[in-house]
Amino acid sequence: MDALSGQRPLGRIPVTNVTPLVEGGDFPLKAVVGEQIPVTATVFREGHDAVNANAVLTDPCGGEHVVSLVCTNAGLNLWEATIEADRVGSWSYRIEGWSDPYGTWEHDATIKVEAGVDVDLMLEEGARVLERALQVENRPESAQRMLGDAIQALRDESRPAAARLAAGAAPEVAQELRTRPLREHVSPTPDYPWLVERQLALYGAWYEFFPRSEGCYYDEAKGEWVTGTLRTAAQRLPAIAHMGFDVIYLTPVHPIGTINRKGPNNSLDAGPKDPGSPYAIGSKDGGHDAIEPTLGTFEDFDFFVAQAHRVGLEVALDIALQCAPDHPWVTSHPQWFTTRADGTIAHAENPPKKYQDIYPVNFDNDPAGIYAEVRRVIQVWIDHGVKIFRVDNPHTKPVEFWQWLISDVAQSHPDVIWLAEAFTQPAMMATLGKVGFQQSYTYYAWRNQRQELEEYMEELSLQSADYMRPSFWPTTHDILTPYMQYGGPAAWKVRAALAATLVPTYGIYAGYEMLEAVPRPGVEEQIDNEKYEFKNRRWEDYEPGGAKAGQLWMADYLRTLNEIRKAHPALHWLRNWRRQGADDENVMCFSKRHVDGGRDDTIIVVANVDPHTTRETWVHLDMPELGLGPNDSFVAKDLITGASWQWGQHNFVRVGRDAEPVHIIHVRRF
Amino acid sequence: MDALSGQRPLGRIPVTNVTPLVEGGDFPLKAVVGEQIPVTATVFREGHDAVNANAVLTDPCGGEHVVSLVCTNAGLNLWEATIEADRVGSWSYRIEGWSDPYGTWEHDATIKVEAGVDVDLMLEEGARVLERALQVENRPESAQRMLGDAIQALRDESRPAAARLAAGAAPEVAQELRTRPLREHVSPTPDYPWLVERQLALYGAWYEFFPRSEGCYYDEAKGEWVTGTLRTAAQRLPAIAHMGFDVIYLTPVHPIGTINRKGPNNSLDAGPKDPGSPYAIGSKDGGHDAIEPTLGTFEDFDFFVAQAHRVGLEVALDIALQCAPDHPWVTSHPQWFTTRADGTIAHAENPPKKYQDIYPVNFDNDPAGIYAEVRRVIQVWIDHGVKIFRVDNPHTKPVEFWQWLISDVAQSHPDVIWLAEAFTQPAMMATLGKVGFQQSYTYYAWRNQRQELEEYMEELSLQSADYMRPSFWPTTHDILTPYMQYGGPAAWKVRAALAATLVPTYGIYAGYEMLEAVPRPGVEEQIDNEKYEFKNRRWEDYEPGGAKAGQLWMADYLRTLNEIRKAHPALHWLRNWRRQGADDENVMCFSKRHVDGGRDDTIIVVANVDPHTTRETWVHLDMPELGLGPNDSFVAKDLITGASWQWGQHNFVRVGRDAEPVHIIHVRRF
Repeated sequence: MDALSGQRPLGRIPVTNVTPLVEGGDFPLKAVVGEQIPVTATVFREGHDAVNANAVLTDPCGGEHVVSLVCTNAGLNLWEATIEADRVGSWSYRIEGWSDPYGTWEHDATIKVEAGVDVDLMLEEGARVLERALQVENRPESAQRMLGDAIQALRDESRPAAARLAAGAAPEVAQELRTRPLREHVSPTPDYPWLVERQLALYGAWYEFFPRSEGCYYDEAKGEWVTGTLRTAAQRLPAIAHMGFDVIYLTPVHPIGTINRKGPNNSLDAGPKDPGSPYAIGSKDGGHDAIEPTLGTFEDFDFFVAQAHRVGLEVALDIALQCAPDHPWVTSHPQWFTTRADGTIAHAENPPKKYQDIYPVNFDNDPAGIYAEVRRVIQVWIDHGVKIFRVDNPHTKPVEFWQWLISDVAQSHPDVIWLAEAFTQPAMMATLGKVGFQQSYTYYAWRNQRQELEEYMEELSLQSADYMRPSFWPTTHDILTPYMQYGGPAAWKVRAALAATLVPTYGIYAGYEMLEAVPRPGVEEQIDNEKYEFKNRRWEDYEPGGAKAGQLWMADYLRTLNEIRKAHPALHWLRNWRRQGADDENVMCFSKRHVDGGRDDTIIVVANVDPHTTRETWVHLDMPELGLGPNDSFVAKDLITGASWQWGQHNFVRVGRDAEPVHIIHVRRF
Repeated sequence: MDALSGQRPLGRIPVTNVTPLVEGGDFPLKAVVGEQIPVTATVFREGHDAVNANAVLTDPCGGEHVVSLVCTNAGLNLWEATIEADRVGSWSYRIEGWSDPYGTWEHDATIKVEAGVDVDLMLEEGARVLERALQVENRPESAQRMLGDAIQALRDESRPAAARLAAGAAPEVAQELRTRPLREHVSPTPDYPWLVERQLALYGAWYEFFPRSEGCYYDEAKGEWVTGTLRTAAQRLPAIAHMGFDVIYLTPVHPIGTINRKGPNNSLDAGPKDPGSPYAIGSKDGGHDAIEPTLGTFEDFDFFVAQAHRVGLEVALDIALQCAPDHPWVTSHPQWFTTRADGTIAHAENPPKKYQDIYPVNFDNDPAGIYAEVRRVIQVWIDHGVKIFRVDNPHTKPVEFWQWLISDVAQSHPDVIWLAEAFTQPAMMATLGKVGFQQSYTYYAWRNQRQELEEYMEELSLQSADYMRPSFWPTTHDILTPYMQYGGPAAWKVRAALAATLVPTYGIYAGYEMLEAVPRPGVEEQIDNEKYEFKNRRWEDYEPGGAKAGQLWMADYLRTLNEIRKAHPALHWLRNWRRQGADDENVMCFSKRHVDGGRDDTIIVVANVDPHTTRETWVHLDMPELGLGPNDSFVAKDLITGASWQWGQHNFVRVGRDAEPVHIIHVRRF
């Protein structure tokens, strides 16, 4: 039997159309520990004999775990199971189809003995099938005895045929054969890659700040700003932890370039005291492996990380692989940049616009050199306790570089998480996920209407969940959409609540607490962008007795959201998002349900996405999706307000500006 | 740069989401010579530089053929091309993404020179790009001179900048760079298998008969039937060729078993003179490698094949891998059958039904032995001029057996075609196509309504065309649906015309000419099924002067259909089927268009699928799909009747019982 040119050998029992596969298995299926992943396959055979199937999950140590598949559509030969992994690492999975002699015999014998056809023959054949089943490995002694009794009964000619058949087809025999089946012609698919990562890769609440802003102040006497430092920024960590966040994300902490430094609002004429953009990296004080001296030292950084850990926060560091003209690489390794025909190094540009404070890195002249240097830089930060990297503009660097870097780091540090800030076209965004980025910023900020949010969630939770994990941010230091500029408090509540419940990971940029909503004219960005200047938010003014006491009201709302998230496993997952009905086109309703062992946790969210109007409407629930019958009722407890109602399939809601704009409802079953 | 665990290395310019791939490339994409296949890929890169892409087609001798892709959706980075192969064999194809320095320069220079930014620098960089382009292999001397002139002009500081730029960006320079591009960072996908077969694998008109019926007659004097033979059957070939068919398909010609032989209408009590079913194969006279003595000898078979070839017909032979109890294998190789617990050989059965005239082959006891024997049998028939096998019930034999057999035969006989008679579930039908069957019988006989036909055609022409080629049969010797039983002449015309135009391959079972529509009561099958008895159709009675002269009217209709098919390339292809609109839910309208070199052939079919009523309605054409503008008009010539009308986007039609039920319209453009 020769090789089959260009074909996968199917084996004796064909298994086709396995899902999920990322590009046919070119890239690993991604999951986190405990994530429930539905797998399907088409499994069938020739003729009428019984077929069966299982998945084999191979853990990172090579141990194999078998999960039975169930036929859910006989006409389409469709088989399904849910798989999950219990530890981090490189897993694989395959589907095995096999011939099921006991199933064949049970089906045929039941029909033929009843019809009086070949009765003794069928009973003897049943005894022989069970004799073979006795040889299956690891069958407990008690089960062996039980099968032995069945064999004896099948052959006991003193008993009526129906009784002999009943002994062979008894429920306990069938159950034992399901648990430890007699499998023939086992036909495996290839092993497909399955990358299992830690829970934070999927689920977490992030908070972003500029460390220099935390603790900075304007010295009226001297007429200049005094910078915040890693030490003063660390003082803000308990408040962030108190709001329930899991990750503190720092904008870059490296030395800031001085050549062509930008001033406030991206102006070209920075004054001598302007601090510059932390995204223009590198000066005489060092590059990506150094710390801006005004922020502190590595000792201070270590202190910051330790303080974060002490209050339960992980630290995410911004990695922006671009250089100010005075970055040390420019002189030490000019080949890592692009040299123009006139011998100068190329600035960043988007013709005809030029960005003269930035030299983009060129990865093509000396890939081995620049790859190794970036790898070294990353290790510096890993060695200082950073396990999360938020990558600035990864879509302006070669995809194959990230594919290599993330894979190489994972080999020694499988717990490292990379977030892609790729606000770009869908193909790039998807591919960065396929090659390893654990998380991606998304188009969430620009999806504000109900229909577009629903369509986007179907894409994210069903189509792309195998390779791309979304992170939802209502605002960032660069993004302030018109919806947030003009929507007022209702908009800020809706966008935070939706981000926190639609997907497992969301993030908040400092200042959300007090609705910093003033844009730079003509731009979807805050005025006085914190990238270019100090921003003293005067948190102390909001404390009891302060000038603005009680006005930091979004902080409590965020804390409530984070508490709800922590308390409800349904909100820890992505694939369980389900659209629910609502009559008003501006009222969005969806549910998330997670069943694990004994616990069945179900959340329903109702949100009015129109921040300007209070809306009253009816929501219509897909009850089976909630694990309920069509006429069941349940206690709907709004976790935002604590109110409870009795709900059923159809329910009246009032949400919006003059009420709470969002209900986050826990389903309490009777 | 280490290996990437479980990932396809993307290369410098990512290429993802290649289509078409059959199960991610597990099975070959199938095509015939000249078939136009649309390929797509997502091709993109980091940053703003220009990217480009091409397909590389590798022919069976290893020669490479490059086809440029065109970006058809910039936002989605979607690239497309149409590929086709010019000879039979195992091809492969891959997509290459690459960086396009000339495209990058042309884009940036146009903007910057116009804006007066970096003018001299950009012109010099253009000259350097063209200098590199000069090094590309195989550039003709004239093109080299043209590029050399452009380089000189770019550097000619005596000319205005706009003129220098125009020289570098001139249309002839751009065209030359499209034809022989300067490609950087060429990043290929893997080579995907692509099996190219001869045209008859996709396009042909088949005619089925039982050879013993052609020339048989009832000898009134002796009171018994005299069988037709291969020699008498050969006399019918010119009439079949005259109707325009391409393939004559013979039911099995092997010795018919005598043990438990079936009688008329599948009765269990065959008389001594009953000829038996040719599907109960094997007797003392031999098995699958022998010829039923009453039909003739191998010499007669060779004569039949030669006569067929003489009139332009290829011969298809029925292969039914099952045995009568007196087949020689039963004694020579009992291990090729299933032995029951009582030592007997298992009959075919579908519990509790038994088919005691048939022993199914068991492929599992001695796979190497039975594989080799079947391969030997197939070679016998190939050596006698058979290149087409119609396989009876392939879904009752292991799929991996067919995968091996078809692949093995193709290695020495790439022109052999296999038709799967797998009237079974979709998964089996699809997989038999994936593993090599060139053609499949389909559910066509049971798709009689407009909507179900349209949905089925979208599946066949768009979703499964990469691996499964449909063959449409209005009837077979085993299938006579209620639609055909009760629909009368209009039904028989509609079903033949739709079969002949919806898909490139269709087939007709003998007797269609005179509407043999009488069923065996309660069964979707003809009365007096030709499988079990002789059938003398008395063709001579329909000839001029005969008792039924002029009543063989479907023969002329079939001939017209086959002539239209031959004359119109649009009907030779599957992927070009397009749904068109019609107001009446029983009137189906579709189009097929094929453009090849200078010839643009377009056919529109309008069919009333209700055989009982004449219907008048409007059809609405998708004009761009026909290569026409929305307000264009054209001459619509009905190729069935010869009538011509002036048609545009919206047209009145009258089709059905009291008129022609089907228009086959050729679009003649002004």
